[in-house]
Amino acid sequence: MMGGDFAPLEAIKGIKLYRELGSNAELTLFGDSQQINDLLQEHQLDLAGIHVVHTSQVVDMDEHPTKALREKQDSSIAVGFGYLAKGMTDAFISAGNTGAMMVGSLFSIKAIEGIQRPTIGAYMPRENGKLGWLLDVGINADCKPENLVQFALLGSIFAEQILNIPNPKVGLINIGEEEGKGNLLAQAAYPLLKELKSINFIGNIEGRDVFLDKADVMVCEGFTGNIILKLGESIHGLVQRRNIKDEFFDMFEFEQYGGVPVLGVNKPVIIGHGISHAKAFKNMIGIAQTMIEKDLIGKIKASL
Amino acid sequence: MMGGDFAPLEAIKGIKLYRELGSNAELTLFGDSQQINDLLQEHQLDLAGIHVVHTSQVVDMDEHPTKALREKQDSSIAVGFGYLAKGMTDAFISAGNTGAMMVGSLFSIKAIEGIQRPTIGAYMPRENGKLGWLLDVGINADCKPENLVQFALLGSIFAEQILNIPNPKVGLINIGEEEGKGNLLAQAAYPLLKELKSINFIGNIEGRDVFLDKADVMVCEGFTGNIILKLGESIHGLVQRRNIKDEFFDMFEFEQYGGVPVLGVNKPVIIGHGISHAKAFKNMIGIAQTMIEKDLIGKIKASL
Repeated sequence: MMGGDFAPLEAIKGIKLYRELGSNAELTLFGDSQQINDLLQEHQLDLAGIHVVHTSQVVDMDEHPTKALREKQDSSIAVGFGYLAKGMTDAFISAGNTGAMMVGSLFSIKAIEGIQRPTIGAYMPRENGKLGWLLDVGINADCKPENLVQFALLGSIFAEQILNIPNPKVGLINIGEEEGKGNLLAQAAYPLLKELKSINFIGNIEGRDVFLDKADVMVCEGFTGNIILKLGESIHGLVQRRNIKDEFFDMFEFEQYGGVPVLGVNKPVIIGHGISHAKAFKNMIGIAQTMIEKDLIGKIKASL
Repeated sequence: MMGGDFAPLEAIKGIKLYRELGSNAELTLFGDSQQINDLLQEHQLDLAGIHVVHTSQVVDMDEHPTKALREKQDSSIAVGFGYLAKGMTDAFISAGNTGAMMVGSLFSIKAIEGIQRPTIGAYMPRENGKLGWLLDVGINADCKPENLVQFALLGSIFAEQILNIPNPKVGLINIGEEEGKGNLLAQAAYPLLKELKSINFIGNIEGRDVFLDKADVMVCEGFTGNIILKLGESIHGLVQRRNIKDEFFDMFEFEQYGGVPVLGVNKPVIIGHGISHAKAFKNMIGIAQTMIEKDLIGKIKASL
């Protein structure tokens, strides 16, 4: 409840929106209980199925993740991961410090056996109106070819299960169309991806293809992915400042998508953008619920 | 004259546009003399200061550069580089096979002593209406930190001399704002750039800053740069297909900028986009002329 620029108010409003959908997941809220209880009351939330766990500390957005988690053991993030690790909750969601959320995931619930590098992806607007999925978007700035292969597998399962795209097309982000093009990493990853029979690999895609419907899952190391994501995010501001109203470019308002899961860890963890508002929190709870209902983690394990 | 998808017609039309500006550079045209002479006549060009050199071969757009140049010694590109190397021309321009233009540059006129990797950049539209300069955009997919430092220097001189930006702000494309962020390459390049007193290094810039006026010169390896360039190019098509008319987004029609110089070689070489039309050819001649008049190569040599 304490994560994000508008905590805990927007999280409470998000819970209210989620409840209004008629959804009924039990929610455990970690944070300052006084603030949380006041807001729950103020926003007239039905308290059935809502548990508040008081935590006395907050990991700030700019703190060093490992240090903060070690020193602030009663922070909402640290306590939340403790509940998740012990099985007292089934998923964990926060719009707080992204690094702390990653470190918490890796140290408390850990990577799935066989996964070298858990990853974070991002929704990508596409001209056909349907979202694509880009990964990694910054957690793994330097990668080996084998990492990209695992991202492709994780992304493919996510796109199929959560984005409801059957047999999703997986593209390798590259600087040329043919096999053999690209930097050393992309050159080495291509044949490995081609061999991976459990995904629908369509070959290289270029920068110009990202916002088209060429691929449903777009794979790259986290440096390139982060540049693409932030460049994409900036387009919405540009379009708004030019007073352009357009349905397609509305899709570049990334906040609406809520958070993104950490893929490759043993339980559902959703990380939200720091600027998350109510709708984003509502969507994050929805994604976590879908991940649980569809047993995404189980399907990832089975695929390895 | 034989390079590009609309050769030689659009090149001839470009020369006509260039001449209509009252500019008076002597032009040596390499290609099929019959076709060229017919078009010169048809478009009523004044032949004073125009020389036609017949070449019997053409390097196709998808040919292997080194192989094509070796086997097609009477191609317009090979003969054109021969003239340039012998000092019979002062600059060389083509919208032909980019790889062949790079290989021709490196083998005939060669890299400037001290330059490890000549580079190609691209104009970047910015919200303030002024173009920025991104480099490398694909020639050097894998780079060492020292390469990025030289790109920064070359880009800075280009922006100052050709884009008329005094003391241009140089940014390192990265996935975080602070020093120490990024992949191994960016982490290693940052302190080297900071030490380089001859440029105005402003630190890291992120994907969201590319189309803003944060930096005038944006430096990265060619993999990331090529993704950014092609993603930028795709925006114009998206905007057009959405029937959006907007001055800023008009800047994303990259063809209007003509070609880009190979920076770091001993003479001005301009490479145009394969889809170049008349205006692009006109602009390429203009850029070459400015590079000669301002002695860009001399200034680069002096800076090393």
